[in-house]
Amino acid sequence: MLLYHDLRAPNPRRVRIFLAEKGVAYDTIEVSIAASAHQTPQFAKKNPLQLLPVLELDDGRVLRESMAISRFIEEMHPEPNLFGADAWERAQIEMWNRHAELELLLPISMIFRNSNKFYEGKIKQSPDFAANMREVVAGRFAWFDSELGQREYIAGARFSIADITALCAIDFGKPSGIRVDPATHPNLAAWHARVSARPSAKA
Amino acid sequence: MLLYHDLRAPNPRRVRIFLAEKGVAYDTIEVSIAASAHQTPQFAKKNPLQLLPVLELDDGRVLRESMAISRFIEEMHPEPNLFGADAWERAQIEMWNRHAELELLLPISMIFRNSNKFYEGKIKQSPDFAANMREVVAGRFAWFDSELGQREYIAGARFSIADITALCAIDFGKPSGIRVDPATHPNLAAWHARVSARPSAKA
Repeated sequence: MLLYHDLRAPNPRRVRIFLAEKGVAYDTIEVSIAASAHQTPQFAKKNPLQLLPVLELDDGRVLRESMAISRFIEEMHPEPNLFGADAWERAQIEMWNRHAELELLLPISMIFRNSNKFYEGKIKQSPDFAANMREVVAGRFAWFDSELGQREYIAGARFSIADITALCAIDFGKPSGIRVDPATHPNLAAWHARVSARPSAKA
Repeated sequence: MLLYHDLRAPNPRRVRIFLAEKGVAYDTIEVSIAASAHQTPQFAKKNPLQLLPVLELDDGRVLRESMAISRFIEEMHPEPNLFGADAWERAQIEMWNRHAELELLLPISMIFRNSNKFYEGKIKQSPDFAANMREVVAGRFAWFDSELGQREYIAGARFSIADITALCAIDFGKPSGIRVDPATHPNLAAWHARVSARPSAKA
């Protein structure tokens, strides 16, 4: 099993943490976004959308999209379970994973794309949109902080894919100057310290 | 089972089409976004994010997020299967559902939010971001058109959740003047006609 990834991008990191939690061995090929390696004709054969991560199975089959890859790995390696053990828990974890993705990872990624020098001259940026998203993210941090006052992990009493998504989202705020302030959001900060202390966070 | 929805918003429609394909009966409460009914304190008890759809089960449990709701319904009513019948098909459908969501529904929704009069004065709009997203969507239409030259449905030979997402995305382009031109994208147009002809498309 071969993972095409970039060490600094948040979506490949979701899959690396997922694989680390599962204890699954895999090979990697780094496709550096900074070096535009994702835009070569060679990589377009793996993913015409020029996005990472991509998983290549030993028989040559290729799978794109971090959540499709993670779900497939969950089916191949069910334990430890990270998507839920029964229908209702699976629904709860999916709901919270979507919240973490749509309310944190997506706006934080769009802030980076639309305001960071990394993309200057590479894509059309909209700094005003990035500024609007910063306000959205501040509101979402407050909401997650209040939710995490009621439980240990994003989707419930145990670690799940929703924690992986939220961790990768928040850490990807760093290049945009977005950080969790323990004084303002103590529950979110405590959760962040808790999940960051797991060995998988280094993946 | 009770669905809080809005008749014009794309995400509640995804769930309505899903339920229609399953043949599952349910009640509805309309929460009109145009009338700001999603922003009342009463609805905030159902969804603090003020988003639709929300599903309320007969025992009072509440589930947010269209894909969490659809997956839960798939577990309760497995046939006809819309998320995949085995691990690899599930992975393929998830991948294509993500593509339909992230490459079509999301940018098309952001064009609407950032350029339509509907949101004028309600949220901070970034028309330049909407213009950038229009270019992205044009490229994605070309890509989906080329993919649909190779098969009947978004994720393979049969109808799936990925078709529901792509249909709701494309139809939500209408208020932004985004339509599939049969002369430019004949495969995408043929697919659109095919899925629009299903009785569920009227849900």
